[in-house]
Amino acid sequence: MASTLDSVITLAKRRGFVFQAGEIYGGSRSAWDYGPLGVELKENIKALWWQNFVRGREDMVGLDSSIILPRRVWEASGHVETFVDPLVESLHTNKRYRSDHLIEAYVAKHGREPENGLADIRDPETGQEGKWTEPQQFSGLVKTYLGAVDNEEGLHYLRPETAQGIFVNFNNVVTAARKKPPFGIGQIGKAFRNEITPGNFIFRTREFEQMEIEFFVHPDDAKRFYDEWVEACWDWFIDLGIDPDNLRRFDVPDGERAHYSDATIDIEYKFGFQGSDWGELMGIANRTDYDLGRHTDESATKLQYFDQASGDRYTPYVIEPSFGLTRAMMAFLVDAYTEDEAPNTKGGTDTRVFLKLDPRLAPVKAAVLPLSRNEKLSPRARELAATLRRNWNVDFDDAGAIGRRYRRQDEVGTPFCITFDFDSLDDDAVTIRKRDDMSQERVAIADVPAYIAAGLVGGN
Amino acid sequence: MASTLDSVITLAKRRGFVFQAGEIYGGSRSAWDYGPLGVELKENIKALWWQNFVRGREDMVGLDSSIILPRRVWEASGHVETFVDPLVESLHTNKRYRSDHLIEAYVAKHGREPENGLADIRDPETGQEGKWTEPQQFSGLVKTYLGAVDNEEGLHYLRPETAQGIFVNFNNVVTAARKKPPFGIGQIGKAFRNEITPGNFIFRTREFEQMEIEFFVHPDDAKRFYDEWVEACWDWFIDLGIDPDNLRRFDVPDGERAHYSDATIDIEYKFGFQGSDWGELMGIANRTDYDLGRHTDESATKLQYFDQASGDRYTPYVIEPSFGLTRAMMAFLVDAYTEDEAPNTKGGTDTRVFLKLDPRLAPVKAAVLPLSRNEKLSPRARELAATLRRNWNVDFDDAGAIGRRYRRQDEVGTPFCITFDFDSLDDDAVTIRKRDDMSQERVAIADVPAYIAAGLVGGN
Repeated sequence: MASTLDSVITLAKRRGFVFQAGEIYGGSRSAWDYGPLGVELKENIKALWWQNFVRGREDMVGLDSSIILPRRVWEASGHVETFVDPLVESLHTNKRYRSDHLIEAYVAKHGREPENGLADIRDPETGQEGKWTEPQQFSGLVKTYLGAVDNEEGLHYLRPETAQGIFVNFNNVVTAARKKPPFGIGQIGKAFRNEITPGNFIFRTREFEQMEIEFFVHPDDAKRFYDEWVEACWDWFIDLGIDPDNLRRFDVPDGERAHYSDATIDIEYKFGFQGSDWGELMGIANRTDYDLGRHTDESATKLQYFDQASGDRYTPYVIEPSFGLTRAMMAFLVDAYTEDEAPNTKGGTDTRVFLKLDPRLAPVKAAVLPLSRNEKLSPRARELAATLRRNWNVDFDDAGAIGRRYRRQDEVGTPFCITFDFDSLDDDAVTIRKRDDMSQERVAIADVPAYIAAGLVGGN
Repeated sequence: MASTLDSVITLAKRRGFVFQAGEIYGGSRSAWDYGPLGVELKENIKALWWQNFVRGREDMVGLDSSIILPRRVWEASGHVETFVDPLVESLHTNKRYRSDHLIEAYVAKHGREPENGLADIRDPETGQEGKWTEPQQFSGLVKTYLGAVDNEEGLHYLRPETAQGIFVNFNNVVTAARKKPPFGIGQIGKAFRNEITPGNFIFRTREFEQMEIEFFVHPDDAKRFYDEWVEACWDWFIDLGIDPDNLRRFDVPDGERAHYSDATIDIEYKFGFQGSDWGELMGIANRTDYDLGRHTDESATKLQYFDQASGDRYTPYVIEPSFGLTRAMMAFLVDAYTEDEAPNTKGGTDTRVFLKLDPRLAPVKAAVLPLSRNEKLSPRARELAATLRRNWNVDFDDAGAIGRRYRRQDEVGTPFCITFDFDSLDDDAVTIRKRDDMSQERVAIADVPAYIAAGLVGGN
């Protein structure tokens, strides 16, 4: 039987949530494209995140910094030096692998560390006894060259995290937005890492999107805000419908954290990967004064805060909740995937597939369906769809049996199907069918916008 | 006297619309960062565009394709071969320039072509008589290397336009979204061009954002839809408040169009640049069947449409309205910049600066201002701000004289200032001041959300 994850991946490709990037040219392992439904779902996640964590809070402002930053930013941040992975090459295939990933996969399969290290690990492709080169350090930074010549002078890096664009603008934001700690800066944007082994669908890609917050606090308050942010992040997923049984916290131990982190809690989701069910959905890190301190040392600018009331000058500590946008999208899809038994036209039941997405996340909010393709019904139904489109993403579908059209909408998580039938021509009302319980209700056409609006407020 | 453009640039930097990328390290000429107000303005433009051109239309769907695509996409599209600029080097400074830009600048200054070509053009930095190398063709594509080794195999390009990600997904979208021509695909995203001479603030950068539509039509309908899209794009700017006197169309002549275009109309805005007032805001091109045809030839996939009703199989023509997001932002800022004379506290008048932005564009929708910083007023005013923040980006400011706080909000285009005074404690009402005419009105606190909502529908 197909796992839920496999079913979600198949559905996502078939219905246009996610396409393979450059598919007609054999595809790229680096990235994925988001189709008509995928881009709407992704935009909804971004808008809800921005409203909840940035616009909706007095202690937060937003930023959108560039992907390409001067090289010195990444030298100061420690990324050029420490953002490296151990890489080995199989002597059988000349393919390269991250040795830490090979060992993780071994542990996931066998439940223990390999006794002789890499020597115990077989070639993943051929299954032959492993023959590996010595591990070499390999940079995860993605390089590019700007300017008229292709040399060191023009070398730039694509950002591996949006965070540094926030740190280097600390003084600018404090001055322009007149903020003082505790306050935070939120940012949504692309980041790039030269992953050697991208995989697991949209989980690990070279091009990806982050939603990051850098929250600046007095050093004495760091622990308290760290704890608060862990709760706030957890709650956000729960509020948007994630089953708490599919979430867990992982306190990343010493020696396994990123170079800048004094404490990290990963929130993991039960994606159902082969080998290991759980994967990192996001992390909350205490970056201390590491980044502001480094940039203060390396640039001519003091990234510090002067508290006029107390006369205290200090380098704020930074609490960083860092979300993977497409990982969040994948978790919402996996969590929403549901099968139940629903009546069919033959008096029996069929398996029905539906995405039980929070209505705020649903890529299509409502579908307007004339009972049949008919010159009286279709224009009036189209008119209703056009009215609703002023506020929401709305589908119109008059092709095929109504039952099949309901199922098509269920499958992509549309909360409301609005059927325009022959009675509608007389009573100016339509039948609204709800996705989850398939209950139906007759609603006056004039009341439909308010009905939909009331159904989209969310919160289960 | 400072030009409007200079005043806008100064205001944008000072108030946190736009910061120089990597400023603390001397800055980058490649890109700009968008501060708390800039990111909100930019997000508003994107959301209004998406609603107007994608979500709001039955004949449009959205897409979000990757920045990094396989190299073969750019070979097939003709970009590797033809996306090149003529580059010359000054023998005085060894700096490189685009020869076409040098000549354009000469024409703008002298009103005529230089008689002896480049030989008449002085070094822009030193003013010395020009000594130039022969022009060389230089690629505008930004390169990167992915994978474990830095060689030709890993060579990828960052997209110079979002359009190709749409073309290569044509069949995927037709199938998944069940669309048939005439229909379009919209996309917002970053693109990268290795500009030799970035400049004019956020007008020409190496990293920038596009909002693009590829509209697929039967070849016989191409001219009609081309004309329709020119009108639709023009109208969008007018609807959002751009003065039509500051817009004009430029029908790009043969020999000056991009390699894929059979006809192009640029919509230009009067930015007020030195030398030449006008700059390209966006373009509408008839790309014919060039792109789908090239990808059909170069990949194993027919990017065509089969019309079941007529039995007709054809390669659609493509009408492309391509917007520069940050150019649109710059135009909205320049167009909104206004100075008038307003009463001051001494019985005279002062020059008042305000951004007459359409309320839908305004980065801050309302500011809640307690009359003074006071333990009775501030908490109640904060409460009102928190209520409004559920729907909008709202500022709270209790620092300094009320008149100065009004001016601060005027300067960033906030449509409504809500003053919470001592009477408010008794009558549960506040004074709402409107940005443009500074008129004031007393409104019950309970009615404030509806008052603001009514004022944000836009359309001047």
